[in-house]
Amino acid sequence: MKQYNVAVVGALGAVGQEMIKTLEQRNFPVKELVPLDMAANVGKTVQFHGRSVAVKAARKGAFVGVDFALFSVGADGSLELAPVAVDEGAIVIDNSAAWRMDPGTPLVVPEVNPAALDGHKGIIANPNCSTIQMLVALKPLHDAFRIKRIVVSTYQAISGTGTPAIQELKDQVKSWAGGAPIVAKVYPRQILFNALPHIDDFLENGYTKEEMKMVNETKKILDPAIEVCPTAVRVPIFRGHSESVNIETEKPCDPGAAREMLRAAPGVKVMDDPSKLVYPTPLDADGQDAVFVGRIRKDPTVRNGLNLWVVSDNLRKGAALNAVQIAEVMIARGLVK
Amino acid sequence: MKQYNVAVVGALGAVGQEMIKTLEQRNFPVKELVPLDMAANVGKTVQFHGRSVAVKAARKGAFVGVDFALFSVGADGSLELAPVAVDEGAIVIDNSAAWRMDPGTPLVVPEVNPAALDGHKGIIANPNCSTIQMLVALKPLHDAFRIKRIVVSTYQAISGTGTPAIQELKDQVKSWAGGAPIVAKVYPRQILFNALPHIDDFLENGYTKEEMKMVNETKKILDPAIEVCPTAVRVPIFRGHSESVNIETEKPCDPGAAREMLRAAPGVKVMDDPSKLVYPTPLDADGQDAVFVGRIRKDPTVRNGLNLWVVSDNLRKGAALNAVQIAEVMIARGLVK
Repeated sequence: MKQYNVAVVGALGAVGQEMIKTLEQRNFPVKELVPLDMAANVGKTVQFHGRSVAVKAARKGAFVGVDFALFSVGADGSLELAPVAVDEGAIVIDNSAAWRMDPGTPLVVPEVNPAALDGHKGIIANPNCSTIQMLVALKPLHDAFRIKRIVVSTYQAISGTGTPAIQELKDQVKSWAGGAPIVAKVYPRQILFNALPHIDDFLENGYTKEEMKMVNETKKILDPAIEVCPTAVRVPIFRGHSESVNIETEKPCDPGAAREMLRAAPGVKVMDDPSKLVYPTPLDADGQDAVFVGRIRKDPTVRNGLNLWVVSDNLRKGAALNAVQIAEVMIARGLVK
Repeated sequence: MKQYNVAVVGALGAVGQEMIKTLEQRNFPVKELVPLDMAANVGKTVQFHGRSVAVKAARKGAFVGVDFALFSVGADGSLELAPVAVDEGAIVIDNSAAWRMDPGTPLVVPEVNPAALDGHKGIIANPNCSTIQMLVALKPLHDAFRIKRIVVSTYQAISGTGTPAIQELKDQVKSWAGGAPIVAKVYPRQILFNALPHIDDFLENGYTKEEMKMVNETKKILDPAIEVCPTAVRVPIFRGHSESVNIETEKPCDPGAAREMLRAAPGVKVMDDPSKLVYPTPLDADGQDAVFVGRIRKDPTVRNGLNLWVVSDNLRKGAALNAVQIAEVMIARGLVK
């Protein structure tokens, strides 16, 4: 089997670490792992298949001989380095928002729109975490019932903000347990025992960038005709985003039929038996690959409507796993030289 | 000024304690405070205006001479004792679900439907916490724009479950901080760093009792024509329920006009200036009387739609304060002998 040189850019970040773990766990055919990070981190190491691999600087020249470069460094870093990586011969799978809405860049959830990869020009965008899990759950329902409108409220874990946020929540717990004052630096308010209706920057229209990602990316990935009305909220949870999703469909939809479709859908695990208290929670999703769906029930307030509760590990399917799956699908579709 | 004998039934519970504090803070004209609780707690004391008051048994005979009996003992206790209290001459303001949907019992949010008190027969029902704060925020918008449909997802604090849940979250924090195993007894799963889409029992239709309270109580209090599609979720927060509320209205609605109406509305405090990171969070509401509203923005996915983020202290406006306000309004309307 052919093997590939894989760079992970931002290798020491929360998503970068998860990317390396995912490559290992899925036995991705890695010839050489090339962990890249900012200059200050050069010389640190990452663990891969039981070996320590030294981190190199993410810069021009670092991508020569690299087949796949999985980026998770934020939009500015991607805008600067992704074209360099492509010039040097790599396929970039980028986890930032930098290229997602660029018309020439495929934005891909492998279970939803793998064919969008075929016209790629070197950069593939990995969608926003909240969008990925919602669309994995909604794709089979859209195929069957034609979704017209989505009203979604999120319960998003702090690991989506990165390692400093993970440390901040841990520190706030320790301060609280020890009776010390609680310090907020990463978030504008205390996140422990709180909920912030604020993820990413606010825009003129009153929505946040995070919310508009769910609107725009859903249209690009699934169907431009779908209207999305989102509210994105940060909650004191380490891993696992939850979404309360209300859909209105063109065709009559039935919770029982939806449940069966979701049971058969790729990447989905149905946990839905309320009489036995079976429903997904973020702790169920922690470290898991699947998008978990429960609380599937009729919305009787519209002609055709359903509610769902969708939970997934934001660092895995919401980021690292989706990126690695994109690479796998590109290999399977013969898109890699 | 006339003074009243006020019994608090369930005086040692989370809501009972908040009722006593609220009576004190609002200088409610209390002649005698009569704290009642289960037999096992007789002899314990509560603090009221700097004095210790002994807890007596909540039972037949305890309500003789009592003007108002504020109940917070759960539905079974209310079903048994509220009629006894009425027989003995008290007006019962009951925080449980026992009497809310009884056609002869007023279900009242003072800012919304005070006139419903006029036909009372001795028992007044205090609505569910999630309903109260939602309706305080929506009443002025319904008056102006006629709300047709509400899609709401909640972020509910654990104090709504009572003192054992407060202790459970504290214990889980201590276990986590000390590296000990986390024990869940009050909730079916760990609540720390988790979210449970499950409040109160599940019903045949897939909704929980908590969710159906929001549906049915909204119709009874505000307007039977309003359709509500709710998802109720418990999050690891001590105090303060948040709600992501999406409304569809008959008449054109505008975020600016809505904001001005809410600024003028009784019981509401608008915190809505995203450019300055002004929005309400549960910690802002902790210990406060108001219903806080922020993130007021147009929903462009329907002809006439708005989103709001509504936060309030579930033990105060969601329970104790609303009950005390009902007593105040009854005095003002001359409904007390």
